Amino acid sequence: MTTARRVLDRCAALTAYSASPDHLERTYLTPQHAAANTAVAGWMRDAGLDTETDAAGNLWGRRAPEPPGTDGARQEPGTRGVPALVLGSHLDTVPDAGAFDGMLGVVLAIAVAERLRDVALPFALEVVGFWDEEGARFGTALMGSKAVAGQWDAAWWDRPDADGVTVREAFERFGLAPDRIGEAARHPEDLVGYLEAHIEQGPRLEAADLPLGYVTSIAGARRFVLTLTGEARHAGGTPYERRKDALAAASEVVLAAERLAREAGALATVGDIGVEPGAVNVIPGRARLTLDVRAVDDAARDALVAAIEAAGRELGARRGVAFEIAETHSAPSAVCSDRLSHAIADGIRAARSGEHTPDVPGLWSPAGHDAMAMAAVTEVGMLFVRCHDGISHHPAESVREDDVAVALDAFEAAVFAVARGTTP
Amino acid sequence: MTTARRVLDRCAALTAYSASPDHLERTYLTPQHAAANTAVAGWMRDAGLDTETDAAGNLWGRRAPEPPGTDGARQEPGTRGVPALVLGSHLDTVPDAGAFDGMLGVVLAIAVAERLRDVALPFALEVVGFWDEEGARFGTALMGSKAVAGQWDAAWWDRPDADGVTVREAFERFGLAPDRIGEAARHPEDLVGYLEAHIEQGPRLEAADLPLGYVTSIAGARRFVLTLTGEARHAGGTPYERRKDALAAASEVVLAAERLAREAGALATVGDIGVEPGAVNVIPGRARLTLDVRAVDDAARDALVAAIEAAGRELGARRGVAFEIAETHSAPSAVCSDRLSHAIADGIRAARSGEHTPDVPGLWSPAGHDAMAMAAVTEVGMLFVRCHDGISHHPAESVREDDVAVALDAFEAAVFAVARGTTP
Repeated sequence: MTTARRVLDRCAALTAYSASPDHLERTYLTPQHAAANTAVAGWMRDAGLDTETDAAGNLWGRRAPEPPGTDGARQEPGTRGVPALVLGSHLDTVPDAGAFDGMLGVVLAIAVAERLRDVALPFALEVVGFWDEEGARFGTALMGSKAVAGQWDAAWWDRPDADGVTVREAFERFGLAPDRIGEAARHPEDLVGYLEAHIEQGPRLEAADLPLGYVTSIAGARRFVLTLTGEARHAGGTPYERRKDALAAASEVVLAAERLAREAGALATVGDIGVEPGAVNVIPGRARLTLDVRAVDDAARDALVAAIEAAGRELGARRGVAFEIAETHSAPSAVCSDRLSHAIADGIRAARSGEHTPDVPGLWSPAGHDAMAMAAVTEVGMLFVRCHDGISHHPAESVREDDVAVALDAFEAAVFAVARGTTP
Repeated sequence: MTTARRVLDRCAALTAYSASPDHLERTYLTPQHAAANTAVAGWMRDAGLDTETDAAGNLWGRRAPEPPGTDGARQEPGTRGVPALVLGSHLDTVPDAGAFDGMLGVVLAIAVAERLRDVALPFALEVVGFWDEEGARFGTALMGSKAVAGQWDAAWWDRPDADGVTVREAFERFGLAPDRIGEAARHPEDLVGYLEAHIEQGPRLEAADLPLGYVTSIAGARRFVLTLTGEARHAGGTPYERRKDALAAASEVVLAAERLAREAGALATVGDIGVEPGAVNVIPGRARLTLDVRAVDDAARDALVAAIEAAGRELGARRGVAFEIAETHSAPSAVCSDRLSHAIADGIRAARSGEHTPDVPGLWSPAGHDAMAMAAVTEVGMLFVRCHDGISHHPAESVREDDVAVALDAFEAAVFAVARGTTP
């Protein structure tokens, strides 16, 4: 069996750890979390890694220290010995998930560690399976990687899941001590960097007929609630010139956000909408919309937000409908480091060296990743793997075995490229 | 005190019969229904009418038969004696209602009956206060007037209100016998016609600077649920060329319905909308909208429905979004009879005879009225009274005292006009 085939088989095997027999759903601090950690830890040990579940429930695999005599000096700088290059991604899923979002990156990282088992490197090598990247259980995201980045938010402890179980209670039921959460944090001096492989979750590589790309930046989304307030009036008795129809105004805002985002090469999504009073024979007096805005960098994103806000006010004013915008979430974009991006690009070129001048595209990631959290504590780089039709967060998620094979080569070569650039 | 002032005072007095001290809400078969019937019955008796609550809870006031000797032959045709001209409207309200929608017509009818107390007429004269015109309690409409028209629907008995109380249970608690509902029905041979005065619930009379108009037809609404089905995908990972955004398509449909209705001089209202999955970071895969369509006649209305449907299919297809339309309600428009419309127009002219060639506009009513139900059993005619800014179904509903004064004169003159055209 090829290593690529085994990687795919392991992704398939992980789908068994699900809250439902009908679809894949594996969320933070559940029995499925524990079972998946146990299975993946077995694969890590098979790859020669020592395993540990950290104070946030993340699973780590670590190469034993370099054998004595290779270079004793490298044992010193960090608190855990030599600083580490961390490879990984996440093991949790959304409800009704596919098999690859997150898991592919963890399983690939294990396979690379196994290939490098007997290779001396100027850094420690660690593999991590993060939890709660998706945030499906507690309405958060990146809790595991934020704990590792030292950015655990104490306000999270009291967040409930759909059954009213808080994060604190879930920690205790899982066997973790909330008061030890700080022990999950890693320090910059312990780390060389973080490399993550992930399915693209978009169709750009497939459209370009390329298996791999490197990531230039990970967009930080800003999210808003838009409120349009007109006047609820009788649908029969109110002619158009007297209407202040909040839904008609909201419809114009939905379409304006789409047009402005397209023009900016960015993304603006209205994912939810509700109106009041919401009766078949009453003109909506109020509409509330969610808005999610992402762009290649924070400046482009913020300019788009300002343009949508201006359009909303103008479109509302034409109808006598008041427009309000309230921010509910804002994450800064994470820029991948030049050093690690070059290493990944070099890795892709090395893996595809049989081809005539391989095209190695740099892509921005509109979707969030654990690398965003890790960027707070170390340099990050990401490798994107082509996925079919850009489908993600869906059972139809799929990757090609030949792409996984070249991704393995590229990821391994990227580690060597980092090693070449690392002064021991 | 002028009669017009007393009419307004009675409308104000009725606002005391409300389910809430904070706003006016008086619905079918409630304690407020009983209390309002008692108060209005007192006014009817003061006007010389005998009162009765019928098997559906509607309140009737009837002139005693013509005194013996006026014309014994007129006592025969109908089962209740002489056929009756019925004047009336409804006494129930929407939640957070104004004081005039319905009640003005009942109180005006009582005032006209009082003025005609000693006048011999070639028909019996009856005043009715219908219930459930608005349908606010059981999600129906026109239950009272449909019972009178012999169109009570047996399926209504099991309809629950918001507290799970069915129509049948509400009847029994109110002291009405469900198995006697048929006794509320009137027969065509008992009736000369039905005349209803009502606030316009629109701004056309105010815009024309006229106090009164007659109604040409009452639009029957058709109502639909529109379903747009695209594809729920990741808001970050899905570029525009891969999106099948059900809400963006729905927004185009909302605006197309508005544009097509304006072009047709009709009304199309999307009163409610919901999307699935409805998450801030997921492109909506499905949107459901309600649609209410009204026009001057059924042919114009049905042509507008067809145009909206065609636009929906085309707009959806451009985005890869399927468009479905399902009808949930359809009422035929009611055409006011020429005879009674002429009588009302004559009444308006007579009331405004001091003016130079008074303009007497014929208006179609986009809103439903008890006259729609009564049209199934007798000829109907309606008098519209100017209301401020077209506001209705709202506490700010208001009418002018001088308009009420001319409405009284016109309504009385309309009764005489009917009498002139009636062969005894």
